Amino acid sequence: MDRKIKVGVIGATGVIGQNYLRLLSNHPWFEVVYLAASPNSAGKKYIDAVAGRWHMRTDIPEKFRNIIVEDASLVEKAAGKCSLIFSAVEMEKQAILAVESEYAKQGFAVVSNNSAHRNTTDVPVMIPEINAGHLDIIPLQQKNHGWSQGFLVVKPNCSIQSYMIPLYALMKAGYSIDKMIVTTLQAVSGAGYPGPASIDLIDNILPYIGGEEEKSEVEPRKIFGKVQNGKIVSDESLKISAHCNRVAVTDGHTACCSIQFAGKKPEMQEIIDIWRNFSGPPQELKLPSAPVPVMIYREENERPQPQKDRDAGNGQAITMGRLRKCNVFDYRFVGLHHNTVRGAAGGAILTAELLKAKGYIK
Amino acid sequence: MDRKIKVGVIGATGVIGQNYLRLLSNHPWFEVVYLAASPNSAGKKYIDAVAGRWHMRTDIPEKFRNIIVEDASLVEKAAGKCSLIFSAVEMEKQAILAVESEYAKQGFAVVSNNSAHRNTTDVPVMIPEINAGHLDIIPLQQKNHGWSQGFLVVKPNCSIQSYMIPLYALMKAGYSIDKMIVTTLQAVSGAGYPGPASIDLIDNILPYIGGEEEKSEVEPRKIFGKVQNGKIVSDESLKISAHCNRVAVTDGHTACCSIQFAGKKPEMQEIIDIWRNFSGPPQELKLPSAPVPVMIYREENERPQPQKDRDAGNGQAITMGRLRKCNVFDYRFVGLHHNTVRGAAGGAILTAELLKAKGYIK
Amino acid sequence: MDRKIKVGVIGATGVIGQNYLRLLSNHPWFEVVYLAASPNSAGKKYIDAVAGRWHMRTDIPEKFRNIIVEDASLVEKAAGKCSLIFSAVEMEKQAILAVESEYAKQGFAVVSNNSAHRNTTDVPVMIPEINAGHLDIIPLQQKNHGWSQGFLVVKPNCSIQSYMIPLYALMKAGYSIDKMIVTTLQAVSGAGYPGPASIDLIDNILPYIGGEEEKSEVEPRKIFGKVQNGKIVSDESLKISAHCNRVAVTDGHTACCSIQFAGKKPEMQEIIDIWRNFSGPPQELKLPSAPVPVMIYREENERPQPQKDRDAGNGQAITMGRLRKCNVFDYRFVGLHHNTVRGAAGGAILTAELLKAKGYIK
Amino acid sequence: MDRKIKVGVIGATGVIGQNYLRLLSNHPWFEVVYLAASPNSAGKKYIDAVAGRWHMRTDIPEKFRNIIVEDASLVEKAAGKCSLIFSAVEMEKQAILAVESEYAKQGFAVVSNNSAHRNTTDVPVMIPEINAGHLDIIPLQQKNHGWSQGFLVVKPNCSIQSYMIPLYALMKAGYSIDKMIVTTLQAVSGAGYPGPASIDLIDNILPYIGGEEEKSEVEPRKIFGKVQNGKIVSDESLKISAHCNRVAVTDGHTACCSIQFAGKKPEMQEIIDIWRNFSGPPQELKLPSAPVPVMIYREENERPQPQKDRDAGNGQAITMGRLRKCNVFDYRFVGLHHNTVRGAAGGAILTAELLKAKGYIK
Repeated sequence: MDRKIKVGVIGATGVIGQNYLRLLSNHPWFEVVYLAASPNSAGKKYIDAVAGRWHMRTDIPEKFRNIIVEDASLVEKAAGKCSLIFSAVEMEKQAILAVESEYAKQGFAVVSNNSAHRNTTDVPVMIPEINAGHLDIIPLQQKNHGWSQGFLVVKPNCSIQSYMIPLYALMKAGYSIDKMIVTTLQAVSGAGYPGPASIDLIDNILPYIGGEEEKSEVEPRKIFGKVQNGKIVSDESLKISAHCNRVAVTDGHTACCSIQFAGKKPEMQEIIDIWRNFSGPPQELKLPSAPVPVMIYREENERPQPQKDRDAGNGQAITMGRLRKCNVFDYRFVGLHHNTVRGAAGGAILTAELLKAKGYIK
Repeated sequence: MDRKIKVGVIGATGVIGQNYLRLLSNHPWFEVVYLAASPNSAGKKYIDAVAGRWHMRTDIPEKFRNIIVEDASLVEKAAGKCSLIFSAVEMEKQAILAVESEYAKQGFAVVSNNSAHRNTTDVPVMIPEINAGHLDIIPLQQKNHGWSQGFLVVKPNCSIQSYMIPLYALMKAGYSIDKMIVTTLQAVSGAGYPGPASIDLIDNILPYIGGEEEKSEVEPRKIFGKVQNGKIVSDESLKISAHCNRVAVTDGHTACCSIQFAGKKPEMQEIIDIWRNFSGPPQELKLPSAPVPVMIYREENERPQPQKDRDAGNGQAITMGRLRKCNVFDYRFVGLHHNTVRGAAGGAILTAELLKAKGYIK
Repeated sequence: MDRKIKVGVIGATGVIGQNYLRLLSNHPWFEVVYLAASPNSAGKKYIDAVAGRWHMRTDIPEKFRNIIVEDASLVEKAAGKCSLIFSAVEMEKQAILAVESEYAKQGFAVVSNNSAHRNTTDVPVMIPEINAGHLDIIPLQQKNHGWSQGFLVVKPNCSIQSYMIPLYALMKAGYSIDKMIVTTLQAVSGAGYPGPASIDLIDNILPYIGGEEEKSEVEPRKIFGKVQNGKIVSDESLKISAHCNRVAVTDGHTACCSIQFAGKKPEMQEIIDIWRNFSGPPQELKLPSAPVPVMIYREENERPQPQKDRDAGNGQAITMGRLRKCNVFDYRFVGLHHNTVRGAAGGAILTAELLKAKGYIK
Repeated sequence: MDRKIKVGVIGATGVIGQNYLRLLSNHPWFEVVYLAASPNSAGKKYIDAVAGRWHMRTDIPEKFRNIIVEDASLVEKAAGKCSLIFSAVEMEKQAILAVESEYAKQGFAVVSNNSAHRNTTDVPVMIPEINAGHLDIIPLQQKNHGWSQGFLVVKPNCSIQSYMIPLYALMKAGYSIDKMIVTTLQAVSGAGYPGPASIDLIDNILPYIGGEEEKSEVEPRKIFGKVQNGKIVSDESLKISAHCNRVAVTDGHTACCSIQFAGKKPEMQEIIDIWRNFSGPPQELKLPSAPVPVMIYREENERPQPQKDRDAGNGQAITMGRLRKCNVFDYRFVGLHHNTVRGAAGGAILTAELLKAKGYIK
């Protein structure tokens, strides 16, 4: 690859934007050249725009410090500078819908972290190992809107990655799953910055995260759905019930899952084998951020744990453990993923790599 | 009540023993006069026996400091000093079975925190609001063993109190429940002292607690069971599947529950009303430690929380919240209780109060 | 006391205001009848004004729930309703100076938690055990401003109470102290709500609290000062250097202190005896919130600790430990106090009790 | 470097031993070929010997898993297998003194983490940037004991690295320091595994660490001392007083330091420049683990912090911040280092690299 693809990050000063810059600072395919944020930041060097609110554990990469931040709503500023936009703009929903669509209209490939477009029927919600095929909707999306070149894809909510690929691998192996009850123990970084007050998570847990359970129940159906008649049609066969809790963990969402199969049921060892041997398009296409293996099954009783397992596969792998019979459903297990890598910016970057490999971004 | 019942605590130097002394220091019915522990502690003043390992947040009650600790295995030492024994001995299972039985044989009423006798068919596992009727087995237990006066009752594992009374109240109102999937987020005090290493719970959760899931699934069936043919026969109609996690909370176990009714289903408001209006024998008998109300339902989204709800009813009440429809079963909710009060020493004391009120202890 | 003094709390909806209501709900001398806050809250019932932001661990006391909140800046609203105002208004400094002075001008006794007036030379900064005599300035303060009846006193910053009374007791016993280097480990509740983000205090400490070190160094000098020529003149003889850190503790500030005496030095046991035997005006006047003893010295190595010692004396006592020789100065020790009780609302209430006992409030 | 030096780790199954293996798994100069531990572990594969007690966040390096663990007290087992021994044996002090001396006697270069030999006058306590010259004592040490080839060096306690190099850099620039009062906030990993109980560090700090203050005060004097008359003579001119606290942090010790110069005093900016420009033998010799720069000074108010700064220089750098005037001494600042890397195994490895570069190990 001689020439890197020029990339813009809009919403670059927020925590997700910062994660993009952290993860893209040495990317082999993508080169960040354009940063945009709110009007307050416009005109400032990036280092000044984030002064006092850079929250990553590593410092601002040198190469981004002096880039002049633009106003994210002035789409024309990006023209000619980049072809791919990662969106992490923090606005109210209608404004996000508008600004992301405008970037697509102006010819940019837009990969978004926001939830605004997740229910738009011609916008794919991507977990590249699962629904790479949903990208087939892009030409139709372009046609629907009269966009010549630009398009829009999004990544799902960060609460679901701990179990989506494990479930999908079993489905792909021929085992239908029709019920899952899942309880998540979610890290505070999932709430952005500042997120929960420390006084609420010292010697405490919070048994509620606004909107999270609904997203955890609805988004999987779209991701497991099919492109039909120019729409992505959700798979209604899987019923999910989610309890979402916030716990005193910096990074790493844990999910305690009980699942029931619709028809035939695999043996326990077969499940583990399916998980360990699974690979999807990112692995097959050898995408730069694709973890190999994508799923790790730990035999130890006390695993997976956020502290020890979140960084597996550079934060892109899913780690499972404690597969055992369920007294009520067929099986239960624990899944874990890194919510700000696989579950947020890292998942979006993997999606963009898939878009590049499939020829949607040039 | 003119005269208090004389009480002994065996295993008095451990954390549960300390909790007994903390909770019994001003009890209106019971007066602790006898303390026993391992041979190492025997012959020492209590204050010296626990020097450097008193872990309560309040100091050792004055009145217990100078009591000379006896060897818990020398049952004869207790003779003539007390009639009720709270057992928190820390031994291996066979030794516990033997020593607790020996105290009963020697005429003491024994109320134990240990799990050793929970599967003994003529030993009731007590949650006084639920199975006060199981005390009817005591005469038979005495007959089985040839005990003239002593007997043995135990309290259940600390993981289940967050949901047992809520479930029972619904059952008592005529609604059978046949399935529950529950995930617990359990406090570290449940593991005794020292319990989990701090390095394992800073920025982390542990998705496993040895033996806890099995107890959480099996013990409820016995508590919901019936005295039949001289045994307590478990109710096999309720299937429970439990995921037990350890989290960085000092006190207060939280349970995320999804339940399915067997036949007719109450409306949501009816459930809340049932919970709020429920009372059991401890409330009706006005036992000193009985919380009124025994169950609190909070309307706020973020409740119950360990920090704010564990001390409800002096740690004896159960707090619930977030009752809502479940996509898979009928309903889901969150329950919480104080694991070292209601779930341990406090639950045992409430049981002893019931025994006294029912005439089993004089 | 037949009749309670009628009290208003301004800034009643903030966290400090909430602490006032929690601590005053059963006060023997004071009855809260007036609540005021920002214009946003004005006209609402208190329970509605704090809906979703009541942060105490116990519920809103029943008696305050239906009080209609007034606009704190409309001083005339309080007229005739109460004679004592506890101020916890959250405004910018100039506005606080103005509003608190206006209440005093209108005849109210004002006891404030804010720092705005701490440098005003005729406003005493009160720790009742130390500088009860500073109240002598009140007539002069009234004369300076032409106030007929109202006046203004304030409580100091919450970082200093762990060592102020210990130092004062030694000074009063005739031992001058001229140098102290102190490092504090401060609880998050000291920062109000929401305070530090949880992601910044999980697996972390913050080695800086804005403005805290300056206050910790300057305020003690005024408190140890004298009323002279119509002013409170600071005692410049004690030099303090403070390092202030934020740690993952909900309540309870800890201070590691090294002190040097100016002239003669007490023996170690003498220091402990002085501390244990010390009492001040609050104890002598038997004020309702006065802790007896006011200082507790613990012999155990690992004390004082926030978890076990913050609630001593209902949060009004100071606990010390680890007194030992210092290699550089004379002695070192650890002090601890409850920052939202003794260090905030509780300290202000104790001050108001002193004012009442001394006849300044009727 | 064609051939790597063969290395043994004794005490290989403990937490420090595990850290050695983690840090040495890809070392350019050293190859671990020999592992020894207690008799319990002897004869087992390493992976089996640490089963259930591997506490690192990354997995056991593949290459060490099948090494058969020997009994560390059977020194002859190591003969011919390696020339350098890293000692992390966990025994009582006399046994450590004996076993480490025996390895030296048998011809091994021994670099130890233990405190046992730190007061032995001919054993250097090494911080390679400071006292590389102390290695000159090795020939004398060998002569004293009649050792032909083996020798013994140790690393200091983990509490002091946050300030030792900062102090030394100033001393080397010509500024004598004669007093320091320091308060440390130390991570739990410094206590080994399991270390403090989680219940003692949730919503709490512990104001005491057994033996830590004494080590923090005494060891610096030896490190700043001189080789004279065949001994390392401590520098008695610097008086240190240390308050050591344990806080809920996994890794990273923080130190709040107040220092006084003996004679002339540098300006604030000069201090920062001295720190930033300092380099010692490890940097000059380009040792593989030497951080460049060795000290980082952060301008932000809230730095250094464990979470963000402990990994600087791969855990080998020291990070400082908050340099400011002290009201009592001349200056104060905050220092931070990674206690299990620079403060333990990493510091020992850097020492071994220095020994190799200086020709003491071949």
